[in-house]
Amino acid sequence: MPGKQYSENYQIPYFETYIKGELTLASLVNILILASEHQLNALNVGEATMHALNLGWVVTQYQMKITRMPKVDEKVKIVTEAESYNKYFCYRNFWLYDEAGNECVFVQSIFVMMSYETRSMVQVVPEIMAPFESSEIKGSKRFPRIKKIDPEQVTTKEYRVRYFDIDGNQHVNNVHYFEWMLDALDYDFLTTHRVASVNIRYGHEIQYGQMTQSMVEQLTVDDIITTRHKVAVDDLSAAEAEITWKER
Amino acid sequence: MPGKQYSENYQIPYFETYIKGELTLASLVNILILASEHQLNALNVGEATMHALNLGWVVTQYQMKITRMPKVDEKVKIVTEAESYNKYFCYRNFWLYDEAGNECVFVQSIFVMMSYETRSMVQVVPEIMAPFESSEIKGSKRFPRIKKIDPEQVTTKEYRVRYFDIDGNQHVNNVHYFEWMLDALDYDFLTTHRVASVNIRYGHEIQYGQMTQSMVEQLTVDDIITTRHKVAVDDLSAAEAEITWKER
Repeated sequence: MPGKQYSENYQIPYFETYIKGELTLASLVNILILASEHQLNALNVGEATMHALNLGWVVTQYQMKITRMPKVDEKVKIVTEAESYNKYFCYRNFWLYDEAGNECVFVQSIFVMMSYETRSMVQVVPEIMAPFESSEIKGSKRFPRIKKIDPEQVTTKEYRVRYFDIDGNQHVNNVHYFEWMLDALDYDFLTTHRVASVNIRYGHEIQYGQMTQSMVEQLTVDDIITTRHKVAVDDLSAAEAEITWKER
Repeated sequence: MPGKQYSENYQIPYFETYIKGELTLASLVNILILASEHQLNALNVGEATMHALNLGWVVTQYQMKITRMPKVDEKVKIVTEAESYNKYFCYRNFWLYDEAGNECVFVQSIFVMMSYETRSMVQVVPEIMAPFESSEIKGSKRFPRIKKIDPEQVTTKEYRVRYFDIDGNQHVNNVHYFEWMLDALDYDFLTTHRVASVNIRYGHEIQYGQMTQSMVEQLTVDDIITTRHKVAVDDLSAAEAEITWKER
């Protein structure tokens, strides 16, 4: 049985959209995570509870299906549920619907609990999960494998981590990875295509002042326009992604 | 007599804050402008009206007094009024108050109307201004002069304009200038000081793909910690600013 659903309404402000007048991928993730924080607060297992246990949530993977991105000023409904969890991994789903009730976006995600003390992953704390009424499962939910980029087919752009890229936990807010990944593509490609799906897996953390390499490979797989991405700091991979596109 | 006031409530989301857990300067301006757009819409002189006349609003100057920046999750009230206007310039004020009614931020601004056809400034259209009930004035409101940076005392960082920096009007959303200006300062300075006031004047537009130089000079003027800034693309000045700071 999936967990309790939480939903809230939202209107897309102009500054969360880009040249096409649609919500950016980075802002999409921001507002979905905001809704899940509101659920955590509503169930009294928010930031304060986690902080008292010296724990934080870290996302390790997103799998997104984007039917269409909402437009500037559009009113949408965001729905989220903590679907299930096992010893280490929590599976949370998000949906974004338009006013007519059409599904625009469906996102599956994997979160882990991290200890601020050891800065490593810990076992899921059942008391934190209880209020969500999520199913405890034995196995792991499989997300599609993200294929490696071909180093010989790659274009690279470099991005220095800026002061305002880091958040209250001294990490780079990982939505910035989307900006680095997409900005590495051509202007012409970006204005003539839209994102249809995203699979992203996070790796090593990135720090203020580091120089990141955003590598991208464009290819067609089974007639589907695909880009493969890697954000790295020297030899350390910070995120890898596979994105599929549709022509506009 | 100042114009009609418009106000709305807002809660600061985590993704509009930075390492200090406070609203960023860029997000401050975003949410103030959003409130003014809501006033325009409420008075039926919004985007659609301007678009039909082939006109757009362009901000040329902000003068900000920041008593304190609101914190993550804080509930605030934003108030705005189109104070007055003359033949070419419109003067709009903004306030941000905390829940106890204390003024956190006061911003004065100058806007002009731009023709999309000629891409230059036009005379203020009185029909657009009528619903605001602003005073038509003869003279100009004086904003403090922004002193030039001393080229010999300057540190420079370069920023390439990214795809997601440009908005639906194909311009760089000018709040990005704040990120470029502040990011050019040291990490240690940024974490130990807070912005107390900002005077910024905008100049030439910046385009996608251009490389901007963010120049900064740090100095103490009459015991006040001050930074002077210039964002330029080669010889063209895009914005100049003077910011004062307080120690945290």
